[in-house]
Amino acid sequence: MRAEIITIGDELLIGQVVDTNSAWIAEKLNEYGIELYQITSVHDSREHIIAALDEAFSRADIILTTGGLGPTKDDITKHVLCEYFGTHLIEDVRVRAHIEQLYANRPEVLNRLTATQWLVPEKAEILENRVGSAPLMVFHHGKQILASMPGVPYEMKVAMEEQILPYIGRATANIIHRTLQVTGIPESSLAILLEEYEASMPSTLHLAYLPKDGIIRLRLSSYGDLSEDEMNHWFNELKHLTKEYLIAETDEPLEVIVGKMLTERHQTIATAESCTGGKLAALLSKHPGSSAFYYGSVVSYDNSVKEHLLEVPAEIIKAHGVVSEEVVCIMAESIRKQIGTDFAIATSGIAGPTGGSKTKPVGTVWIAWATPDGTTAECFQLGKLREQITDRACMKALVKLIKLLN
Amino acid sequence: MRAEIITIGDELLIGQVVDTNSAWIAEKLNEYGIELYQITSVHDSREHIIAALDEAFSRADIILTTGGLGPTKDDITKHVLCEYFGTHLIEDVRVRAHIEQLYANRPEVLNRLTATQWLVPEKAEILENRVGSAPLMVFHHGKQILASMPGVPYEMKVAMEEQILPYIGRATANIIHRTLQVTGIPESSLAILLEEYEASMPSTLHLAYLPKDGIIRLRLSSYGDLSEDEMNHWFNELKHLTKEYLIAETDEPLEVIVGKMLTERHQTIATAESCTGGKLAALLSKHPGSSAFYYGSVVSYDNSVKEHLLEVPAEIIKAHGVVSEEVVCIMAESIRKQIGTDFAIATSGIAGPTGGSKTKPVGTVWIAWATPDGTTAECFQLGKLREQITDRACMKALVKLIKLLN
Repeated sequence: MRAEIITIGDELLIGQVVDTNSAWIAEKLNEYGIELYQITSVHDSREHIIAALDEAFSRADIILTTGGLGPTKDDITKHVLCEYFGTHLIEDVRVRAHIEQLYANRPEVLNRLTATQWLVPEKAEILENRVGSAPLMVFHHGKQILASMPGVPYEMKVAMEEQILPYIGRATANIIHRTLQVTGIPESSLAILLEEYEASMPSTLHLAYLPKDGIIRLRLSSYGDLSEDEMNHWFNELKHLTKEYLIAETDEPLEVIVGKMLTERHQTIATAESCTGGKLAALLSKHPGSSAFYYGSVVSYDNSVKEHLLEVPAEIIKAHGVVSEEVVCIMAESIRKQIGTDFAIATSGIAGPTGGSKTKPVGTVWIAWATPDGTTAECFQLGKLREQITDRACMKALVKLIKLLN
Repeated sequence: MRAEIITIGDELLIGQVVDTNSAWIAEKLNEYGIELYQITSVHDSREHIIAALDEAFSRADIILTTGGLGPTKDDITKHVLCEYFGTHLIEDVRVRAHIEQLYANRPEVLNRLTATQWLVPEKAEILENRVGSAPLMVFHHGKQILASMPGVPYEMKVAMEEQILPYIGRATANIIHRTLQVTGIPESSLAILLEEYEASMPSTLHLAYLPKDGIIRLRLSSYGDLSEDEMNHWFNELKHLTKEYLIAETDEPLEVIVGKMLTERHQTIATAESCTGGKLAALLSKHPGSSAFYYGSVVSYDNSVKEHLLEVPAEIIKAHGVVSEEVVCIMAESIRKQIGTDFAIATSGIAGPTGGSKTKPVGTVWIAWATPDGTTAECFQLGKLREQITDRACMKALVKLIKLLN
């Protein structure tokens, strides 16, 4: 079964908003064994939406649209869908009751624009939007279906999980993806290492290389032709060939892997961050259950914080600079001792664009890992761009932690 | 002049990667007066790429493709473009010299897969890819052009800024977008407030509502028909009508606005975060120059950190709970005093999915602002979803800070 996404909204096409919805939907469709064939982003324009619908219906069984369902004048999706499917708007008493109920708990009054939200296309099936006022609409077009959802990510996610996916039902196709993560080898060297393996793979098996922030994810995909056992065989072979560089046997983010390892062992961690500025803390506290292993951080963006809260002696900073092995080790040991965790990670580096020197150029990052068995530190050169440097520093910090935990 | 983007890569269609490139390119094209008509994401498949090229060439003057240029087997863009434009690969001596130069400074050896990167389509113009080994290719198709770039965001950005945009040149159209940000009013009430204004707008002017995390961005767009003066007139009128809810007169992220205000006044800020777990610190330290005003944070994810590093007395936590006005005020005052900044913000809340109670359900967040004139705190109900709650808490923290600074 084949699906397409049409995202509707000028904001995506002038770059005001990054489309995170499509990747999320794509992942869910995959889990359900539904192939996502294409993503198309179009303007809030009648002609453009209609052209995109025509094209998508010529290729796919399921069309998912996001956006253009707000109560304001710029949102036209509902009206265009009415025209496209030859129907008109009628009041839906259940949607009306739901919206009135939503507003019963809100300070603001239900006004006449919000009231237009309970006008729905007569020919559409209306599914419940538990968290918002825009109706979820499903249209049938012969054997094909179109589902229209809001563009607000939180609303779209609840709509997909609670309504649209169960509606579509589990498809029969047996798509299998298996991913592992490696680090410490360039992409082209990895490809040469795997050349014979790739040449010997059945033609229905596909291997993709996905490099990001110093990690390469290797994804094996089979679209319905291989059994679970055959897939395991190929995946195990891949693990074996890459074992020297292997950091994870799943596609889970590294902070989730770290969290599982620590939680299982009843161990805890804290962080002391300079150049990463809280990014590592935000990563480690991102997922539910993180309070079991993550205790906290001191973000010492200013040097005074390093001295006062992390007890780094001013003379050490003066002698070695803040971006140094000495400072980062004291930061890690100090936070580990103060918070009383099993592990601690500290970062100090030059994220740029200014602050670099000949001996410590922008991109230089020292990271220290304080453990029950002592402290180690490493220096990295992580590129030239601020965001890249701090993202990569977080990955380096987690990669080494996973190695220390293994 | 009209452009389209075609992103090439299975990873986008199975949701393994979020497409951030398109929004970035869209913004740049707009600055250059080039309208982006559509974004299409397709598989690493010969037939699919060719179909997308045919469709895009039927609509646009400029086609920009990203992705599929790596040295590995799954990347086929270069070969498909050769076929599409009826040409073949030849060795390019300049590209070869550049790649050899790149590898002269790297620890790894230049292997034979990387060597395929200096094979380029004979009919393409090759532009320099200063930061990577994939060639930047420009094809001519009558008066239309196609430019092919790598999908790695850092490489794509350098390619666009240094090569592709100067190559394309600025169009004459005067595309103007002006955005302001409001808060404290629901989208539909705002639309009613602006009903007369919208009805009186010239038909070439467009108003869009973009709600996110409790902030609504209002964007006025004109595609080449209005003068700067006329646009200012309409924008000023919009500011006047929304003045009660206005939080920013630009599209800049709130943390950038806060940073500019503080830097201008030579004032500083620190944070103490519980439920936001470092997200607020990461926001405040995200942009270049943040070290001028942002000093640091204590992320007190575990209660022991609140007691030891933020000096919140255990009996206060026992009496009021960690999610309380009392605790959050002490957190803010303690970090402000310890780090010695002008302002401090503290957060404590229940991000869920567990930990809620009848009186303090998931989504309850206390925020305190410690200032030179004293400390205030507010309690918010920020929804049901972990990510939504912490994102909204950061926005609430910054909104009130901007109000306090004004």
